[in-house]
Amino acid sequence: MAERSYFDWNATTPLRPQAAAALQAALAVSGNPSSVHAEGRAARALVERAREAVAALVGARPGDVFFTASGTEANMLALTPALETATERRPRDRLLISAIEHSSVRSGGRFASDATADVAVDADGRVDLAALEQAVRGAKRPLVSIMLANNETGVVQPVAEAAAIVHAAGGLLHVDAVQGAGRVLCDIGALGADLMTLSAHKIGGAKGAGALVRRSEDIHIADPLIRGGGQERGMRAGTENVAGIAAFGAAATAAQRAVADEAPRLRALRDALEAGLRAISPEAVIFGAAAERLPNTTLFGVEGLKAETAVIAFDLEGIAVSSGAACSSGKVQPSHVLAAMGLAPALTRGAVRVSLGWTTTPADVEHFLAAWRKLATALSKGPGIAA
Amino acid sequence: MAERSYFDWNATTPLRPQAAAALQAALAVSGNPSSVHAEGRAARALVERAREAVAALVGARPGDVFFTASGTEANMLALTPALETATERRPRDRLLISAIEHSSVRSGGRFASDATADVAVDADGRVDLAALEQAVRGAKRPLVSIMLANNETGVVQPVAEAAAIVHAAGGLLHVDAVQGAGRVLCDIGALGADLMTLSAHKIGGAKGAGALVRRSEDIHIADPLIRGGGQERGMRAGTENVAGIAAFGAAATAAQRAVADEAPRLRALRDALEAGLRAISPEAVIFGAAAERLPNTTLFGVEGLKAETAVIAFDLEGIAVSSGAACSSGKVQPSHVLAAMGLAPALTRGAVRVSLGWTTTPADVEHFLAAWRKLATALSKGPGIAA
Repeated sequence: MAERSYFDWNATTPLRPQAAAALQAALAVSGNPSSVHAEGRAARALVERAREAVAALVGARPGDVFFTASGTEANMLALTPALETATERRPRDRLLISAIEHSSVRSGGRFASDATADVAVDADGRVDLAALEQAVRGAKRPLVSIMLANNETGVVQPVAEAAAIVHAAGGLLHVDAVQGAGRVLCDIGALGADLMTLSAHKIGGAKGAGALVRRSEDIHIADPLIRGGGQERGMRAGTENVAGIAAFGAAATAAQRAVADEAPRLRALRDALEAGLRAISPEAVIFGAAAERLPNTTLFGVEGLKAETAVIAFDLEGIAVSSGAACSSGKVQPSHVLAAMGLAPALTRGAVRVSLGWTTTPADVEHFLAAWRKLATALSKGPGIAA
Repeated sequence: MAERSYFDWNATTPLRPQAAAALQAALAVSGNPSSVHAEGRAARALVERAREAVAALVGARPGDVFFTASGTEANMLALTPALETATERRPRDRLLISAIEHSSVRSGGRFASDATADVAVDADGRVDLAALEQAVRGAKRPLVSIMLANNETGVVQPVAEAAAIVHAAGGLLHVDAVQGAGRVLCDIGALGADLMTLSAHKIGGAKGAGALVRRSEDIHIADPLIRGGGQERGMRAGTENVAGIAAFGAAATAAQRAVADEAPRLRALRDALEAGLRAISPEAVIFGAAAERLPNTTLFGVEGLKAETAVIAFDLEGIAVSSGAACSSGKVQPSHVLAAMGLAPALTRGAVRVSLGWTTTPADVEHFLAAWRKLATALSKGPGIAA
């Protein structure tokens, strides 16, 4: 059987070797980080070393990193009316989110649904800053959530500009950096984020670890989501996933070191893939192509293509791609991201996401293009993989 | 340096070899379980196989197992007024918990603090069933939470009897089985539990995985704690900790097979340890000794001993023990469990927990007793490790 080509890095990445090594080493440490004996202290040391590494990835202090089990949990923890600053302890009255956020932000966290509103994006999939300005003006103490980069299109959002608008209105900004971290510059201070969500398994760590990072200790969540023991300085109870956290730290360090080399290499591969795609199918639309995008992501559509069928056809050719976000790929729903960009369902129901990572080679790109050539030919003969 | 003896199995256990093997194998599967391609389906298969194994450990159906990141998270998920049955959808009006529950239950989950009350325990550390009967009578639709076995004393609770009382009053019963599962019989049907909490790292899995199990699909939580993607059938969003879950499943199967052999062996070792302890220190009090206890747990106190100091002295002798629950062992607080049993602080502030597991040997017990002999001698000469 031919080797497979994995093109679904935005859903999850393989473990980086450094993360695998750290995870292995951590499995041999049997203590509970809350125990005071030598075994406990050894486990605690692994968690704290990882905290330093994750903090370094985003330019934060280790004391401002709180580990969770996922980006989703970090988003649920962050999005609460009980988000306080040293000078403002009244509840946040409104949650404003971009129309293209991940489902875990779209769920609204712990805000009442009638206190939550969307902020529009433009046709290129970037948050509309004029719409944001208008929305924050309608709130007293808004909490705004904007992702660093969209998981479907890869479009990088104007976070620093948004932060200035949000802060001028007395608001706070949460940035879901799950897809952006380790792929583009992600410094919490430079972005102007008050809170930031990270996920280990998108940067080469293992599934089961995430983090919420705050700008400074000035930011305080008065109602932790998971309460009990005093872990994570009272912010998140439950015995820590020590091995997963150790892997997260190692992945963060590796990602931080590698991004300068990886980003241009991935961009070149991705651009070659897109050029090949357009050569085979001149009618293909690459969503968000006019905006700044993550170097590793292509989301494309061809009228008449049915994404679910295409994903299965690719899979049979040894290619793993996605029809959108992994957590909703079981559903046959049009993408809310593409709908927010004003695109017609006839095109968007055929949207296929191709995402690359550090093990992707030119041969993988050739493999993808050969498979697409077959599919496009079959499509032109219809109905086969057509809708 | 002498080998260490680990006597803190109630805080966390080493990985069972079967769990380590399953975890290793899972790390090589890079897909996201929500993805439809081959890599995703392979990850999904690992999660579902583990679900079957965890279900089998407690006599449940796989479809009634919901994975979480910890026992603490499972407790937070379970303890909600929005716990419904097919015939009763009105909110639970009262949360009743035994006075010796883990801090994650004592936090009250998602109940208002004025809707939560304690149920007393007797001097042996067992829930007082008469007090329970009276408490449920004072509520309309109570949710009761009683642990299968206490983490500090190891005292096994009269769960089946409590279930009969709770159900006769129209209540529902949640059982935190984190310490009991894999150590004593833990069948959700036989215990009469409506919901049950499990933790992987207490039965030989890795830290970072837990589960909430329901008696049947008749039980429904209308307000999941973590919302977003549709994972865990909408009950818990966030990409699954695939490796941790795979290890959890393997540990559950191993624990289920081993418990019949391990329990009597551990009981004999524990009894030998207690006999040796009493021979050295006739004044030592073994808490809960008159009740049925987990075969692996001893909690003892000696007047004049200061537990924090004793734990450090043991550690220097190569022995890992605990002064109580790991998640609160950093705090210098008297045990709420021993206080609920009516014991005086003069005795309980010296409480040391010794908990055994499948790798514990007679040599470890000798090691412990030799260390205690030194400590007890030093104590009799005071003040040294005295309070």
